Amino acid sequence: MQIRRFGQIGTLKADKVKEYTKLHSAVWPGVLKTINECNLRNYSIYIKGNQVFAYFEYAGTDYDGDMEKMSKDPVTIEWWKHTKPCFEGFEKGSFYEDMDEIFHFD
Amino acid sequence: MQIRRFGQIGTLKADKVKEYTKLHSAVWPGVLKTINECNLRNYSIYIKGNQVFAYFEYAGTDYDGDMEKMSKDPVTIEWWKHTKPCFEGFEKGSFYEDMDEIFHFD
Repeated sequence: MQIRRFGQIGTLKADKVKEYTKLHSAVWPGVLKTINECNLRNYSIYIKGNQVFAYFEYAGTDYDGDMEKMSKDPVTIEWWKHTKPCFEGFEKGSFYEDMDEIFHFD
Repeated sequence: MQIRRFGQIGTLKADKVKEYTKLHSAVWPGVLKTINECNLRNYSIYIKGNQVFAYFEYAGTDYDGDMEKMSKDPVTIEWWKHTKPCFEGFEKGSFYEDMDEIFHFD
């Protein structure tokens, strides 16, 4: 099975950086369970100023299907009610956006 | 041995995005050899607009020493003469900067 890698970037509201960081210091167990069941692995989030970057690997066989499944999980939906409004432009739908991979070395 | 993970962010000059991307589509073998010898693994670079993000893992036991070794490798020094000027603020020393990890899930 081919592991797929993802890089995503987002921008936080300046006054939400602390809240977003605090939430991620203790991610709810139900959210982690769903991440795992949706086949995401080696998932890291980095911050500098109000810029956030997420890196993760996908170990399943149906990424779109698994993301659909995640988006219907009640605990994840509740989690996103706390995390998504931390993003600059959330009101217009801004959240993490996929970046393009331009280099990889195993 | 503990694997260390790194996330780094950088900003490219708008007119250097194509050049930086092209360089990374065919990284010189000597650069890859040094990356490997300096114990960097699972190294990816992502781009969106002129924002770049690097993720890599360090599998050695002396990160600072290995980075010092990398900075003295003649091929890498030559490579950086092509890549570093692509960064916004390069003239003031700007390049990739380490971010803080706020979340990790294996």
